[in-house]
Amino acid sequence: MRVRARAWHVLPRLLPLLGQLRDAGRSAWSDDLIAGIVAASLLVPQSMAYAVLAGLPPETGLYASIIPPLAYALFGTSRVLGVGPVAVLALMVANALNDYSGGDRQLWLSGAVILAAEGGLFLTLLGVFRLGVLVNFISHPVLSGFTSGAAVLIITSQVKYLLGIDLARGDVFETLQALISHVDELHGPTLTFGLAALMVLLVGRSPLMRLLKRIGMDARSVVLVVRTIPLSVVILATLAAALLNAESTYGLAVVGTVSAGLPVPSLDFLSASGWRTLLPSAMLIALIGYVESVSLAKVLAARRRQKVDANRELVALGMSNLAAAMVGALPVAGGFSRSVVNFDVGARTQLAGIITAGLIGVVALFVTGWFYFLPDAVLAAIIVVAVAQLIDVAGARRVWAYDRADGVALAVTGVAVLGLGIEVGLLMGIVLSLALYLWRTGHPHIAVVGRLLGTEHYRNVNRYVAQTNPRVLAVRVDESIYFANAAQVEDFITRHLAAAPDTQKLLLVMAAVNYIDASGLEMLDHLEEALAHAGIVLYLAEVKGPVQDRLRSTRLGQRVAGRTYLTTGRAFEAFADAECSKRRNGAEY
Amino acid sequence: MRVRARAWHVLPRLLPLLGQLRDAGRSAWSDDLIAGIVAASLLVPQSMAYAVLAGLPPETGLYASIIPPLAYALFGTSRVLGVGPVAVLALMVANALNDYSGGDRQLWLSGAVILAAEGGLFLTLLGVFRLGVLVNFISHPVLSGFTSGAAVLIITSQVKYLLGIDLARGDVFETLQALISHVDELHGPTLTFGLAALMVLLVGRSPLMRLLKRIGMDARSVVLVVRTIPLSVVILATLAAALLNAESTYGLAVVGTVSAGLPVPSLDFLSASGWRTLLPSAMLIALIGYVESVSLAKVLAARRRQKVDANRELVALGMSNLAAAMVGALPVAGGFSRSVVNFDVGARTQLAGIITAGLIGVVALFVTGWFYFLPDAVLAAIIVVAVAQLIDVAGARRVWAYDRADGVALAVTGVAVLGLGIEVGLLMGIVLSLALYLWRTGHPHIAVVGRLLGTEHYRNVNRYVAQTNPRVLAVRVDESIYFANAAQVEDFITRHLAAAPDTQKLLLVMAAVNYIDASGLEMLDHLEEALAHAGIVLYLAEVKGPVQDRLRSTRLGQRVAGRTYLTTGRAFEAFADAECSKRRNGAEY
Repeated sequence: MRVRARAWHVLPRLLPLLGQLRDAGRSAWSDDLIAGIVAASLLVPQSMAYAVLAGLPPETGLYASIIPPLAYALFGTSRVLGVGPVAVLALMVANALNDYSGGDRQLWLSGAVILAAEGGLFLTLLGVFRLGVLVNFISHPVLSGFTSGAAVLIITSQVKYLLGIDLARGDVFETLQALISHVDELHGPTLTFGLAALMVLLVGRSPLMRLLKRIGMDARSVVLVVRTIPLSVVILATLAAALLNAESTYGLAVVGTVSAGLPVPSLDFLSASGWRTLLPSAMLIALIGYVESVSLAKVLAARRRQKVDANRELVALGMSNLAAAMVGALPVAGGFSRSVVNFDVGARTQLAGIITAGLIGVVALFVTGWFYFLPDAVLAAIIVVAVAQLIDVAGARRVWAYDRADGVALAVTGVAVLGLGIEVGLLMGIVLSLALYLWRTGHPHIAVVGRLLGTEHYRNVNRYVAQTNPRVLAVRVDESIYFANAAQVEDFITRHLAAAPDTQKLLLVMAAVNYIDASGLEMLDHLEEALAHAGIVLYLAEVKGPVQDRLRSTRLGQRVAGRTYLTTGRAFEAFADAECSKRRNGAEY
Repeated sequence: MRVRARAWHVLPRLLPLLGQLRDAGRSAWSDDLIAGIVAASLLVPQSMAYAVLAGLPPETGLYASIIPPLAYALFGTSRVLGVGPVAVLALMVANALNDYSGGDRQLWLSGAVILAAEGGLFLTLLGVFRLGVLVNFISHPVLSGFTSGAAVLIITSQVKYLLGIDLARGDVFETLQALISHVDELHGPTLTFGLAALMVLLVGRSPLMRLLKRIGMDARSVVLVVRTIPLSVVILATLAAALLNAESTYGLAVVGTVSAGLPVPSLDFLSASGWRTLLPSAMLIALIGYVESVSLAKVLAARRRQKVDANRELVALGMSNLAAAMVGALPVAGGFSRSVVNFDVGARTQLAGIITAGLIGVVALFVTGWFYFLPDAVLAAIIVVAVAQLIDVAGARRVWAYDRADGVALAVTGVAVLGLGIEVGLLMGIVLSLALYLWRTGHPHIAVVGRLLGTEHYRNVNRYVAQTNPRVLAVRVDESIYFANAAQVEDFITRHLAAAPDTQKLLLVMAAVNYIDASGLEMLDHLEEALAHAGIVLYLAEVKGPVQDRLRSTRLGQRVAGRTYLTTGRAFEAFADAECSKRRNGAEY
């Protein structure tokens, strides 16, 4: 009995799904069932479309939506994250494989599996060694610029399917140019199917939602109706194409044979070659997949006061990608639309994901033959509509308004993704955001502070009406003092000392100095020595505990030991006392 | 008259030398004369030795000590910095040219000029565009590790000249191995000259200095005697080698013919090829030259309460290097020993440098023939003794004790310079120190704070005995909140909120938050929203002016506008008032 009782506590920690089911209770199951069905109807067309976007057979998209979500359901800590193929990763996969395969179809297929396997291993290792912090170096603006840029790339890549024009692969500008010069090759039937699907899909989003709400439908039913529209479009378009025999009569491009059956797990990928060549791409794809997933999971969890554990998410996504590799599918991540469906319909546990996976399994087993006549143009329309919402112009404008440096990082990342390619653009964005951060801390805010009239508070004399003492220069450094800004801090102080020749005491207010590195220490040490030569005494105030601890054993620390005050106010009191007693002593002579 | 009067004010700003001469007055001239003579006697052997170290003819070292110091004297702001060939740059030049020239002597010679020209242009541009801050990214520990490593490399490279063993070029470990296996090839006469010079030079430093001081010689005369010892060694050794006819009799390696004459300025380097290949090396060499020079100039200036202007130093060193290129010499920088000579002897203006340059010019014109019999082993001894003082073990130990991260950066840089090469080692050190800084700010110090009993001050509850309020969680974040640490801050807060379920108010103390980037803002925005859902209200205290300014126009800023307090104390007073009135209101029901 005790062993069973302990298992009931330990197992949920290893397999969060058990804990979710225990907490949610029986009533959750029906919510999860409905969420699972709706998600499946959305995912069948989307998964096939993203597999095609990655240059893979459509059925691998279905496989990626069956097994990986099961792995995530077992290990993941988010209750609503829907794992499967996603558009941006599909583009990154196509990009990496285009260089790698050199046109060899077999290399392309095995390459996708290697990308999933390597990415999965990488994420699992990061999670096991608790290195989740590494991904924090991808900032939100960089991620936003990257995603928007990738979305534009994806949409451009789909235009040819929508218009029925045969174009060579190229970057955004080449594609647009080619489109203009080939505009006379427009294929009427393809355009008809493509535009019709696009219109229905677009109207079937917000406009339909608003309409249904206005006629009084309850919020959940609205979601149910709206989310099944892509599947309806697929079914109707496929039926129409089949009845019109559009493939042979009008030359409409269709998906063709989609292999039926369930994926057979295999470890063949372990012996594949190309692991080393694909490693950098695999790591980038995995990182982007993880960052997108975990930020999505966090936002959704916070709305329900649930919590997501970053390191366990790494393991869960790593396992999902390893599962994807085992069934020969492409890398997976938490998808936006599938997760939001789960959330909106009210999924309470990962059971919804399991139900979705089961339904997609049924489709893969029995229904793939029906997709023969599904027009490529309709898949393209599904991709375009799904991806268009990734372009976040309002967010970019908000970032630009709030912080110019972040805005620049976002814009450069987006433009670099479009102009220089998806991997180079991402790396440029990451490096640029780090460089801008270093630049900023290298140019710290430094202020001369004085006492707010009638208070105990000391503030920047340029911002507030504040009292100063001509014999005391009080300087507040608003940044840790380290190698990149030590020279600036020194310059500020010597410049202000030169401008205030009566200064006898320099007080450094260290409330915002979280850390002084060896270069900063050396600067302060030299400064103290030079000031002492010039008859100016250095005092410190509001030194933080960790900084104080390190200073104590240094030469500088020992020299200023008796001249360090807990607060700026106490320092000024001590200065005033010293001046009074000096004046008194002077009077005695 | 007015024009002349204005020129007297404007010119010194453009050409600091004029200002120095005006300030110093006539009495300075004799000090400068003596300093100039002593420096020249030190520089003649040293300049030739460093040129040979860089794989160049010895006379180019003399040229580099004539024209570049004149350029520096005109533009530089330091009064004592002595510009010329320096050991570390000579090593870097040899290293860059070894790869570049592929054994072609002509390419080697023109390559050195290109390095000087490109480095000079680079520094001048940095100075003109006021980008001097860029060099701050080389931290003191990295520079220290780099210099020590380079010094060891230089010493190892000289061992073969001291011992008279012919060794192939290799890294430190290969050289040591080769030495051991070739130890039987020791060349007696070379060893005799080498060791004798080494002994005299070593004894002629601190031991002799101490002795002369003890017998009552005044400090300045001591410097005069000690500093001329290298030249005496050169003269004595050359005489001995010539009298013994050591070259033909014993096979002693000597310098041989040193071309006589003054350098003829030429702009031939402009049409040389190889600018692109050598650019990265030229930039690294120039940066290191600048950083070493300016830190030396700053230390010496601070001792005399003078000031060095970083951006103008860039221009001055850039001009010096362009001058070096024009006379076909190698890249130059401020040298430690020549500057310290100027300082110790009491040079008051750059006039000392001009006198030194003139004397070396006389040597180049008339005396070079006399150096034919100067043994290579003696030059090697001069290099070894000069360079040995660059190995700073005490400084490394101090850095290690003060800050483990800086210590690691120093050690890794030094070891990488020895093991992987001088440029790779330097770049590794720079990247590592930046990565360590990012890692540190990515893991900020965060503390729950409480009120120090009986005071108005709030401190870390883990460090001080401090009062807390179970309904208020006050958290102080000791770092700017930005993309690399936003997740950590969020985790800390949610973890502590989970551990304190009675919390109704979260107070963020922002005294040390110098900046919130877009990722940090997004995190706080989501956090505020999630807390509001959970019935916890977010308050801010001690928000800095610049942070407040940016927050104001954001959604978060508007939501917390009425909940931001100037100090932590006022926030707690407001909380206490609110609780009292709630209790009173409760009593009325």
